[in-house]
Amino acid sequence: MIDFRCDYKGLISDEELNERVALTRQFVARAQQDGFGGWVDLPVNYDRDEFARIKSAAAQINADSDYLICVGIGGSYLGHRAVIEALGGERGRTKILYAGNSLSARELEKVVKQLGAADFSVNVISKSGTTTEPAVAFRTFKKLLIDKYGEEAAAKRIYATTDANKGALHDEAVAKGYTTFVVPDNIGGRYSVLTGVGLLAIAVAGIDIDRLMDGAEEERTALISDGGKAAEYAVLRNVMLEKGYNIEVLANFEPSFMYFNEWWKQLFGESEGKEGKGIFPASVIYSTDLHSMGQYMQEGRRALFETFVEIAGDYAGVTVPGSAENLDGLQYLEGRELDSICKVAAQATREAHAAGGVPVTQITMPNIDERSLGALIYFFEMACALSAFTLGVNPFNQPGVEAYKTRMFELLGKPGYNN
Amino acid sequence: MIDFRCDYKGLISDEELNERVALTRQFVARAQQDGFGGWVDLPVNYDRDEFARIKSAAAQINADSDYLICVGIGGSYLGHRAVIEALGGERGRTKILYAGNSLSARELEKVVKQLGAADFSVNVISKSGTTTEPAVAFRTFKKLLIDKYGEEAAAKRIYATTDANKGALHDEAVAKGYTTFVVPDNIGGRYSVLTGVGLLAIAVAGIDIDRLMDGAEEERTALISDGGKAAEYAVLRNVMLEKGYNIEVLANFEPSFMYFNEWWKQLFGESEGKEGKGIFPASVIYSTDLHSMGQYMQEGRRALFETFVEIAGDYAGVTVPGSAENLDGLQYLEGRELDSICKVAAQATREAHAAGGVPVTQITMPNIDERSLGALIYFFEMACALSAFTLGVNPFNQPGVEAYKTRMFELLGKPGYNN
Repeated sequence: MIDFRCDYKGLISDEELNERVALTRQFVARAQQDGFGGWVDLPVNYDRDEFARIKSAAAQINADSDYLICVGIGGSYLGHRAVIEALGGERGRTKILYAGNSLSARELEKVVKQLGAADFSVNVISKSGTTTEPAVAFRTFKKLLIDKYGEEAAAKRIYATTDANKGALHDEAVAKGYTTFVVPDNIGGRYSVLTGVGLLAIAVAGIDIDRLMDGAEEERTALISDGGKAAEYAVLRNVMLEKGYNIEVLANFEPSFMYFNEWWKQLFGESEGKEGKGIFPASVIYSTDLHSMGQYMQEGRRALFETFVEIAGDYAGVTVPGSAENLDGLQYLEGRELDSICKVAAQATREAHAAGGVPVTQITMPNIDERSLGALIYFFEMACALSAFTLGVNPFNQPGVEAYKTRMFELLGKPGYNN
Repeated sequence: MIDFRCDYKGLISDEELNERVALTRQFVARAQQDGFGGWVDLPVNYDRDEFARIKSAAAQINADSDYLICVGIGGSYLGHRAVIEALGGERGRTKILYAGNSLSARELEKVVKQLGAADFSVNVISKSGTTTEPAVAFRTFKKLLIDKYGEEAAAKRIYATTDANKGALHDEAVAKGYTTFVVPDNIGGRYSVLTGVGLLAIAVAGIDIDRLMDGAEEERTALISDGGKAAEYAVLRNVMLEKGYNIEVLANFEPSFMYFNEWWKQLFGESEGKEGKGIFPASVIYSTDLHSMGQYMQEGRRALFETFVEIAGDYAGVTVPGSAENLDGLQYLEGRELDSICKVAAQATREAHAAGGVPVTQITMPNIDERSLGALIYFFEMACALSAFTLGVNPFNQPGVEAYKTRMFELLGKPGYNN
């Protein structure tokens, strides 16, 4: 379903590429058997009961809430925001607001202000329930809920996505009777968008989560035996790195993919950026950024390669209006579908950058819809795991994330930490 | 007003640093005398008449429009969006919508839908008036204006920021009687936010543009004789590059600075990314991205340095709510100002990343307000020019931006271009 292409001439021979791609086969099984490899088979073995409960919770929230406050950070934040925004935003009554993903007082205040007197519910997403950012935000919105609805009704408006058996948030949810969904033990945050972590918000936004999972399942079928095109992409990005192309720029032509790019950066950056290794992941939205980062891409330091995410299907109905005077010289495009011009711009950009010495890879999804996005997510997850294994690092841990926290706790005087 | 600090021990000796900083003095004068150096003295010699006209246009738009559609791309887009969002968004009646900064049909349709039946005006910003992205959007919204208000009234709702004397948009504005503001000849797009290019939208958002200019003027005073702290930053980033730190990550702790970071990336990327040279500019918003790119920053490939933008002033009034049960272990922070926790997180992050082998520089602005932001803009513009001159490239051209356009015009069959 997801197509991958790369003109790798000059980088690696066909024989060597095939050999190296074949070597990644072992990694598919390795990911599947890893303690954090639950995402590999998720599209076929996800919990149907929880899935049904997510859908009814989403219906309930749309019935009683103008806003859903999604409280979470990192993998408990970026995935659902990426999907919701890529698919054009909320379709029903309930709008999503995000909180607990920073320590900005201004930002928290802004969300509270935007909420105003509207009806709302909260989805707090935290494996432990003790991460500082979401914990502060959860305290804030829980208090607002209780002040507005009273303790009992407030508890009915809190949806806790957390550990199945233990932890602060789990214990509170059990004690207070919150509706709960599970952050699985065997799927790390950055691979968790298609679990309860991401699906509640996505369903609340009116997005068809069955079709999202269908797309992931279809892509799993394409990749599960030998990694398929994800393996090619995984190997080629390591070839790029070995050749000195140590920055990868993910390029999109749809502004709605801004948060998808952020999700992708976490996926690859957190999976590979360890032991002094890893391609630096960056992203652009074209053609916007052709008028900002475009100069660098065309003529800057030649240490980057570019991965274009493109859409095969057409999007009809938005055409270039005519103008008798044609002062802007645009009349040659009159009546032409804007989407077709955008596709030409994508091709022109690929060609211009390749001519400028930027190795270019191209990932094509069928359309911007649930199935395609589910497939794209799975494609990138598989590619990321295979790429990290190829690089020789563990795709599923993130040992470096604790360093700033430890220092912060020392400085804040958290019990048990000494400054 | 803007403070800059860097622990450069191990990178360069005091003597060498002082010597190299002294060398940049010539570049201040060189920028000032360059044909595109108009931004250097802009804070003291800007056109007061136009400035007054911008304010009355802004008042008029707030009186008659629910939305202002800002049509522009690159330097005609990012600057005002950066300022408006950094300062917390629109304060008055008129909300800003952005168009003409991509070729996405979905995005254009989304803006038209959001506009609905509301009253609106258009600010089209284009030096030539023939750039494809804004030209398509301008045709679209001009048609909507004429359909809604009739030709004559529509012309009163179009504000054209364009060349003072020539070009397609200039000619149309004169013929139709649009209100016009000037894209100066001697200030390139990425340095133009404090001209008519950026100021109309900023004023429409209810932001005090006098204080914005005051801040820029104050910073100019600090930098104009010898580059001041901007020169230190400019030299040290080149030292980083020479030592192999060829990616700079701008780090912010305020989500509202997302577009400021984008503006910064254009400023530096477009100024320095040429002739196969230039630091690759990237950005993060913490603590959000400590839970995504944080792993890479802490332990990834050691080829990056980090520039923190921090706020000296406090933001009071948002505190951590109490909880008798303290299940989340957060009770040690009860009643504490969230902003003070955020500042501790910034310090902890700087220290953790430095300990992880990332050279860290720190830029501090007094507060998030008009004066501070005007100063910060000027600081970065000066630093960018001095840095590019130090690198040995022209800070004011962007020869590579044409490559994709030329290819696109060939593929689209634009008259005068052959495929």
